[in-house]
Amino acid sequence: MTKPTSLADFRLDRDSGDDYIDTRFVAIEIARLLAEGDSAAVAEFLQEQEIADVAAWLEELDTAPAMQAMRLLPLHDQAEVIGYLRPGSQLIVAQQMGRRELARLMSAMSHDERADLFKRLDEDAQEALLPALSQAEREDLRRLAAYDESTVGSVMTSDYATLRPEMTSSEALEALRAQAVDAETIYTAYIVDADRRLIGVVSLRDLLIARPRQRVSEIMDSEPVFVRAEAEQEEAARLVARYDLIALPVLDAEDRLVGIVTADDAMDVVEEEVTEDIYKSSTLGPLDSSVKEATIAVLYKARIYWLVLLVFGNIFSGAGIAAFEDTIAAHLSLLFFLPLLIASGGNAGTQSATLMVRALATGDVRPMDFGWLLGREVLIALALGLTMALAVAGIGVWRGGPEIALVVALAMVAIVLMGALMGMSLPFIFARINRDPATASGPLVTSVADILGVLTYFGIATLLLDI
Amino acid sequence: MTKPTSLADFRLDRDSGDDYIDTRFVAIEIARLLAEGDSAAVAEFLQEQEIADVAAWLEELDTAPAMQAMRLLPLHDQAEVIGYLRPGSQLIVAQQMGRRELARLMSAMSHDERADLFKRLDEDAQEALLPALSQAEREDLRRLAAYDESTVGSVMTSDYATLRPEMTSSEALEALRAQAVDAETIYTAYIVDADRRLIGVVSLRDLLIARPRQRVSEIMDSEPVFVRAEAEQEEAARLVARYDLIALPVLDAEDRLVGIVTADDAMDVVEEEVTEDIYKSSTLGPLDSSVKEATIAVLYKARIYWLVLLVFGNIFSGAGIAAFEDTIAAHLSLLFFLPLLIASGGNAGTQSATLMVRALATGDVRPMDFGWLLGREVLIALALGLTMALAVAGIGVWRGGPEIALVVALAMVAIVLMGALMGMSLPFIFARINRDPATASGPLVTSVADILGVLTYFGIATLLLDI
Repeated sequence: MTKPTSLADFRLDRDSGDDYIDTRFVAIEIARLLAEGDSAAVAEFLQEQEIADVAAWLEELDTAPAMQAMRLLPLHDQAEVIGYLRPGSQLIVAQQMGRRELARLMSAMSHDERADLFKRLDEDAQEALLPALSQAEREDLRRLAAYDESTVGSVMTSDYATLRPEMTSSEALEALRAQAVDAETIYTAYIVDADRRLIGVVSLRDLLIARPRQRVSEIMDSEPVFVRAEAEQEEAARLVARYDLIALPVLDAEDRLVGIVTADDAMDVVEEEVTEDIYKSSTLGPLDSSVKEATIAVLYKARIYWLVLLVFGNIFSGAGIAAFEDTIAAHLSLLFFLPLLIASGGNAGTQSATLMVRALATGDVRPMDFGWLLGREVLIALALGLTMALAVAGIGVWRGGPEIALVVALAMVAIVLMGALMGMSLPFIFARINRDPATASGPLVTSVADILGVLTYFGIATLLLDI
Repeated sequence: MTKPTSLADFRLDRDSGDDYIDTRFVAIEIARLLAEGDSAAVAEFLQEQEIADVAAWLEELDTAPAMQAMRLLPLHDQAEVIGYLRPGSQLIVAQQMGRRELARLMSAMSHDERADLFKRLDEDAQEALLPALSQAEREDLRRLAAYDESTVGSVMTSDYATLRPEMTSSEALEALRAQAVDAETIYTAYIVDADRRLIGVVSLRDLLIARPRQRVSEIMDSEPVFVRAEAEQEEAARLVARYDLIALPVLDAEDRLVGIVTADDAMDVVEEEVTEDIYKSSTLGPLDSSVKEATIAVLYKARIYWLVLLVFGNIFSGAGIAAFEDTIAAHLSLLFFLPLLIASGGNAGTQSATLMVRALATGDVRPMDFGWLLGREVLIALALGLTMALAVAGIGVWRGGPEIALVVALAMVAIVLMGALMGMSLPFIFARINRDPATASGPLVTSVADILGVLTYFGIATLLLDI
């Protein structure tokens, strides 16, 4: 792509994969135009662009020009843009706005994003805002904001489309047309009775295909997949993925429809969950904010707990070495192979643990598969251990003679076998005691493998060399 | 949930999160009913269920009853079920079917799943099948199957809905109604010119809201987000997530529309990518099949390469220890702290690397953020190192006296600092040389940290103790 010289001939090169250069260019141009007072050009440009891109550009601007640019958008676009901003930036926008302006913006936002923003405001701002909202909006906000962080209720939205069962398909289409502007999606509509209990789900596709006089009750799926508002949010994401849904209805304990989780929100939940699991596997605590926005104190807190815990775990390895001080003093050349052997156990164990953690998370393997998987792992680990023993035996002969080589080779097979079996078992054990299997990989596996490795290596050495 | 005693009163308890007990129960009941010759009951039951559940039950059955149950479904449902089966199971179904039956099934399948299945057949089966398909189907198959595994072309489907720009919105709705049965989605429709070049995209929602006589060309988005067929499939997934799309149009080099990537297929791509990244971070090679289906040879091959490579990497740590043999022989109590110190560097490094790999993958941080992130990391690592030094200093006094304690505490701070800085830098270096940053975590970081740890610890010890 040739470098654009003005916004007028700018086209986002989405092919490139790295649109950051573009993002900087556009942000600088917007700032320049605003500084020159040409807000008409900015308004015209922004209205033709995708909302997600507009949000990315606003993130790059300073607060004053960002607010100025944002206010050039129609209210409905402003309400969408704010949903794409980072939490920190959303808060800045809210603080910059007056009470009335913010209330108007929040009325236009999708209900789930509105509730998330409301929760982030401090108590004074919340109190100031509430009177400016309508009665219905206040109640909706309070209800959505009341759900726990980790539950389905905290990610669902309440702006879904509803139909009555006695409607004909052409009446239903008319009803959806009327709800199209406000509802998060109209591609799936929900049929509720007088008590708002969910009695069916119908897709817009099926309504279109149906004969015009056919009733909704005949077309709808009367046993739809649903989730409870109090369930874990991963459960909603799992159901959306498993059944390839556009949106999943959310019921309260009395089977009343209280919201929906859309596919794109489910995708966000999956991304969050994956991040959390990856953090766990590296002994990182959960982070509320992004890595970029996190303070030093927050990152310190997320990291120190396991680091200190593992220090004390590794004292056992040290004690193991200390116990074999006589053997080591007599054969100092053994030390050359110590890092190599204990690291091999940790590496093989980390591989096994990672395979099992991921397979358990995706449902590829189940806890009851443990038995035969362990059998298979023994064979794989023996093959790996023998190959690695061959690789080090030569070095063993060179550094310490045939006896040391034999000790090192035997220890390698034993250590890789133990590391692999321990690594593959830990995730299953964690799942059994209802802890997240993801905790059982990385540093934890390495630390346990270290202890086993030290004891095995020097144990074999003492046995073979001291006789 | 009370345990059901027959299929008739069975309800899948989707609340429980663990529906495996249910899956086994249903599969056993289906097998029993089929063995008793009551296929009518099975047919009636299956037709009321979600396709994804039916597929899960078929996976649990032996081949003969699974085929029998599958054939009880209408053709259209069969075509959907096979898309939910594991690759291995799909192949078994294809092998069990005659040429004509398989051709009929494939005609009803969605185009992307059909092409995937076709690619998995051996050459003889492919040759036998082709004559039984229509000319258009053969061409579609050949075209979709021709794309490289990792490209957008290999995950796109060609059964999308198209409209012409001069249609009115009510004509367009009629046209979508006609395409609703065959198209993968009708919620987004594509407007192409006579050469099939994409000139716009319109959502069914906007068509419904529009005035009946308004033309498609006035309603459509004439600068839609798109992706090239030869782009990496992650790129398609990234765009679907960024713009919250239901489907993303795929263009060839001449801007002709050749397919779409739907949101649910994008979600599958994300899951595959995440798995690949997690594998890489544990030095596992890519696996084509699931962990459960993989053979011992396949798993051996995915694991041995890095394990042997890391063995040779760890020789440097061994050589480091050997270089300090005199110091060690004079102060054997130093060995007690060796595992603890080198593990701490690896653990801190793994944490830093994981944070950066994930933040780079999600776009939270960018390569250009490296400078100030490094500065922040120095402060965090110093705080972590000092805390951990305090934790071990006491043990140092107890095991070896105040001199050893000083050595251990100083080494801890230095090792944690180096480990953290190395761990956070490696992902950026890998990104810079166009390698996947995910490779730069876990065992690789641990190995490098080991070498640095050994040299630092014994270097400080030699300096302080031997003077």
